Amino acid sequence: MYVSLGEIEKARETLAGVICRTSLAYTNTVSDMTGNLVHIKMENLQRTGSFKLRGAYNKIANLSETEKAHGVIASSAGNHAQGVALASTVFGIKSTIVMPRHAPLSKVNATRGYGGKVVLHGDVYDEAYAMARQIEAEEKSTFIHPFNDPLVIAGQGTIGLELLEDMPEVETVVVPIGGGGLIAGVAIALKESNPKIKVIGVQTKNMPSMLESRACGKVTTISGPPTIADGIAVKTPGSMTFDIVQKYVDDIVVVDEEEIAGAILLLLERVKTVSEGAGAAAVAAILHRLPQFQKTKMAAIISGGNIDVNTMSRIINQGLGKTGRKVFFDTIVSDKPGMLCKLLELIAGAGANVVAVTHNRENRGVSLGYARVELELETADDDHIQRLKHLMEQNQYCVNIR
Amino acid sequence: MYVSLGEIEKARETLAGVICRTSLAYTNTVSDMTGNLVHIKMENLQRTGSFKLRGAYNKIANLSETEKAHGVIASSAGNHAQGVALASTVFGIKSTIVMPRHAPLSKVNATRGYGGKVVLHGDVYDEAYAMARQIEAEEKSTFIHPFNDPLVIAGQGTIGLELLEDMPEVETVVVPIGGGGLIAGVAIALKESNPKIKVIGVQTKNMPSMLESRACGKVTTISGPPTIADGIAVKTPGSMTFDIVQKYVDDIVVVDEEEIAGAILLLLERVKTVSEGAGAAAVAAILHRLPQFQKTKMAAIISGGNIDVNTMSRIINQGLGKTGRKVFFDTIVSDKPGMLCKLLELIAGAGANVVAVTHNRENRGVSLGYARVELELETADDDHIQRLKHLMEQNQYCVNIR
Repeated sequence: MYVSLGEIEKARETLAGVICRTSLAYTNTVSDMTGNLVHIKMENLQRTGSFKLRGAYNKIANLSETEKAHGVIASSAGNHAQGVALASTVFGIKSTIVMPRHAPLSKVNATRGYGGKVVLHGDVYDEAYAMARQIEAEEKSTFIHPFNDPLVIAGQGTIGLELLEDMPEVETVVVPIGGGGLIAGVAIALKESNPKIKVIGVQTKNMPSMLESRACGKVTTISGPPTIADGIAVKTPGSMTFDIVQKYVDDIVVVDEEEIAGAILLLLERVKTVSEGAGAAAVAAILHRLPQFQKTKMAAIISGGNIDVNTMSRIINQGLGKTGRKVFFDTIVSDKPGMLCKLLELIAGAGANVVAVTHNRENRGVSLGYARVELELETADDDHIQRLKHLMEQNQYCVNIR
Repeated sequence: MYVSLGEIEKARETLAGVICRTSLAYTNTVSDMTGNLVHIKMENLQRTGSFKLRGAYNKIANLSETEKAHGVIASSAGNHAQGVALASTVFGIKSTIVMPRHAPLSKVNATRGYGGKVVLHGDVYDEAYAMARQIEAEEKSTFIHPFNDPLVIAGQGTIGLELLEDMPEVETVVVPIGGGGLIAGVAIALKESNPKIKVIGVQTKNMPSMLESRACGKVTTISGPPTIADGIAVKTPGSMTFDIVQKYVDDIVVVDEEEIAGAILLLLERVKTVSEGAGAAAVAAILHRLPQFQKTKMAAIISGGNIDVNTMSRIINQGLGKTGRKVFFDTIVSDKPGMLCKLLELIAGAGANVVAVTHNRENRGVSLGYARVELELETADDDHIQRLKHLMEQNQYCVNIR
């Protein structure tokens, strides 16, 4: 089956002193919300911000001296890039990472920061991949596959060993799936240690390639819209990872964009930890897609925390809107001194905090002598918004909630 | 000295099964930036989002049955409120928490969520405190002091025991100071176990009350401007905590608002963890105020993670601006179809991402036939901004960076 438990144990020795042994934290919030005992394995706290370092390092550690001398090449828009760059730097070898031209600046900078040479090429991942294979041929460097490689899978599997040590009583482990390297390694480690442990995979609804492959009984390529969980948006799963998933993974569920964004916000606000979309997928699944589990000792792998802070800011704002903790509305006031102040006093009296105000009298559809006021307010919940709206209407304001 | 190591060990038994044994995580980022080996004790992952539960629970656990029957009362705008509410609920006793009227809605809701009865009173903490003491007298309930109480101090001290277990080789521990309960407990646990460990306190520059008290040789009340580290903005330290700090704390340093905001952002972006202002203070101190430490085995206590997500959003945006990763600028374009598009193409070609655009032709100071364009852009760093500005000026745009 490509990778044995023994090879994962060997990978663990190889990784010692380089990777962090990440924490497994119990989360009351998720446990209480679902009626289970939920722990999170915090690979977002791993060096480079994701589990990818484990597999990349294990692969590079096993290269021959001649291979090392020629350096390594990889293509990635994200976490694998950083893992390969850092692992190579630790060994003092050269790494080249081809990233799509529009890869987030933060990830490009991080990869360079870990010592990788970044080549920006192509508009999509596939073009970056093709260029990487071309450089591989020209420079005789070794291509480090992000998932379909026994040594990479064994490296990711070390997470399963740590999990078993920290929580030998675990009953169900929920793992995000992109190409399948993480779940393949973790499933081998868990199932070959204790076949009773259930392993559940999670994909984004926008790119359920492993689920589709499973339904077809063979590796299948799909396409789909962009997703907030870009780390697991892989069109074609690996052939090895597919076989391992077929053998060892009990079930695969999908989560949608709203569920993922909600899980990111919940992890930030209540669990106090930063997760990227792919990283939050397992928690989203536990919250929304696994109602059959009750009083179960569960672990969710938070696979990474490399979320762009601008995206984080947007998720916060959208999430606050959805839960009634932020509201945008507009109204019309007569354009006389003091009228805006009167409105703001009314709002303050109702216990809402003003985040932003725009007062505009040159708006289409606003009569002369009047001005449109747009407000962004912090509120307690949907009820609070309704009470506020009612109060304003009682005071003759015509309120339009957006 | 009010509290012995034995009492902290006893508190640990009392707390077992109620509090989380929080993780101690090594941080490469902070270590590399400072040349030390820096670990963080993640009390932001504690139940209720801060260490305060430890002290509150230990205090309430030690009340007599009669006292429990009368319930407890506390005043707090933040973490202590949540700690007292949850601890009381675990014991099935009544808790009343007086909070200032303008306490953040998220904290009021969280306190209610943990089962506390919230009374909103007064504009500042002192008025809430006075009301709490009045209710205490009327209802014969027990006032739970946030820091100046041996049982509370012993509860917080359990953090020191966990730290010693996880990192017996620790040389220096950095701890935020508000009223002093946390550092007093931790210092007793550490110093009475191993007097060689250095304990450094951190206060906000806006409210250095323990430092002032130390300078005066007695408990001293000060006042100061608001701070992002509201959790440690205490005007008067405790008498007991002051004595313990005098005996056991090696040094106290202050950090300013920018340093704290920078540490919050660093912890979010690089360490992938959510910290409130007080919680980030110890990391801010290690980054900026403790250059005398090199190659030192350090631990910083992240005391809490209860930061309002709106505040988080603001810190992200300001932090990005300071490090050249976000820029606001405006320019004037002629008000003809296609001109905005031409400008945006130029910007895209320079590798900057547009976050927001406002195109306004009805602006004061803009001639007829022209429009002002305001842009919010995502950039790589200050150099990138300068290159972008230069490119635009070469293309005849008059650029005004804000």
